[in-house]
This record gives sequence, C-alpha cells and structure tokens, in this order.
Amino acid sequence: MEALGRQILVEFYECNDEVLNDVAQIEAILLEGTRASGASIISHKFHKFSPHGVSGMVVIAESHVAIHTWPEYSYAAVDIFTCGDTIDPWIIQEHLKEHFESRNTSAMELKRGMFKVAEGQKLLFKPENAAKFNN
Amino acid sequence: MEALGRQILVEFYECNDEVLNDVAQIEAILLEGTRASGASIISHKFHKFSPHGVSGMVVIAESHVAIHTWPEYSYAAVDIFTCGDTIDPWIIQEHLKEHFESRNTSAMELKRGMFKVAEGQKLLFKPENAAKFNN
Repeated sequence: MEALGRQILVEFYECNDEVLNDVAQIEAILLEGTRASGASIISHKFHKFSPHGVSGMVVIAESHVAIHTWPEYSYAAVDIFTCGDTIDPWIIQEHLKEHFESRNTSAMELKRGMFKVAEGQKLLFKPENAAKFNN
Repeated sequence: MEALGRQILVEFYECNDEVLNDVAQIEAILLEGTRASGASIISHKFHKFSPHGVSGMVVIAESHVAIHTWPEYSYAAVDIFTCGDTIDPWIIQEHLKEHFESRNTSAMELKRGMFKVAEGQKLLFKPENAAKFNN
C-alpha cells in the first residue's frame, strides 16, 4: 500500500499569546515556514477574529497548511497536508514551533489516500500526476 | 478535559471522477454542504490543477473545510474542522459523499485543543470567545 498524501496535525500549547493574536505575524511565519519546506505557494488567506484569534490557510501545489489560533488559551491548531516526496512538512512544524515559542507541542502524522500498487511502481502526485502510475 | 475543536478527516474513495475534476462543481458542493451545516462562510478559494485535480479551502467562523481531489484515483481527501456546539460537521460529510457518489468512504473524528476545565464550566469558542470561561 502507498499513500497519496501525508498530514501532520500539530497542537501548539503554551505559546506566546501576542504572536498568536497578530494576524500579520501569523501570516509571515506560516509563509516563511512553508517556503522553507520547499513547497510552492498558490494562494493564502488569513483572518483576524474579534476579540481574539486568527485563522489562515495556505494552499500549496502539494496540498495545504491551515492554522487556527486561540490566544486566550495560548493554543494553536495547525494542519500540514503534503503530497509527493519533494518537501518535508516537519520543516514547517519546526519553524512554527520556534516562532510561536510553544513550550508544549504534540504532533501526529497520518497517511491519506491509501492505494495498492504493484511491486516497483509508485503513486504519482499533484502537480505531476499525469499518468496513473510511474512505470 | 474539554476540546476546543473537532476535526473530521474523510477519505472518499471510488467517486465520480468527472465531479472530482470539475472545480466549479467541487466549489458549489462544498459551499452548499457548508451552508447546510449552519456554518458561517468567511472566505473560500478553489484551484484546478493541470492535468487533473482540485484543491479548495473554505474558511468558516467555526474553522475550515479543505479538499484535495485526485480524479485519476477517483479519490478525494476532505478535512472538516469545527469548533463550538452550533454546527454539525457530519452534515458536510454526508452532503459531499452523496454528490461525489463515493462508494467507499471512511472517516475519523479527532479532538483538537484539549484543556482541563473546572466542573460545570465550558470552554468558549471563536467567534464568541471573549472570556476565558463561561461561568
């Protein structure tokens, strides 16, 4: 079995509240981390909530990065969904952890889209998924 | 312990390939399903990949809905992240399942942002999270 995608779900607890409530900083940190991973950014959108909190999405050619922050709980939920072998999603996680100053982080990695492939074959990924299998 | 958010990760296998490759249909189906759940849509962005596939994000006041489709594998990965008690994320899952004509769907629900609360108290959620606890 091979997976089309891998997804990292990260719980950032005990973060810097001010950072988590600053939409401009959150946007800059996510974009920097995403670029550092080698991902290709297609679009991004960030929103500030009243009275607290930020939500943001970065669509990448290799899938997405999403964040929701609760500064009042010093907490941010982040999802990093990637496909292909060319980028390392953990680089994004490390970048965010450092800049959020999280003192308590937990993360899990899941496989998404599991398919049986013949021996010696691989699944192909967006954006290079022209053929069903790589022969 | 109480959770700030709940997240449903859905694997839609054996879908209608043509639907999965039609960015306009995917956008309409996701927005309809999201509205049906009672969520408040803040922004949305959908992209068509060449030669196949669609990625899309719907930011809602209650968090987000994200999709990535691989029509060449008849597969779509969907994340539904919600907070608060007012909306039912499973309504979105059901709506998508029906319109993607998925003959093989699996889903799991996770809790995000776990906090200890005193008895009789509840966590408050965006966008109504003005106070730390609901007394």
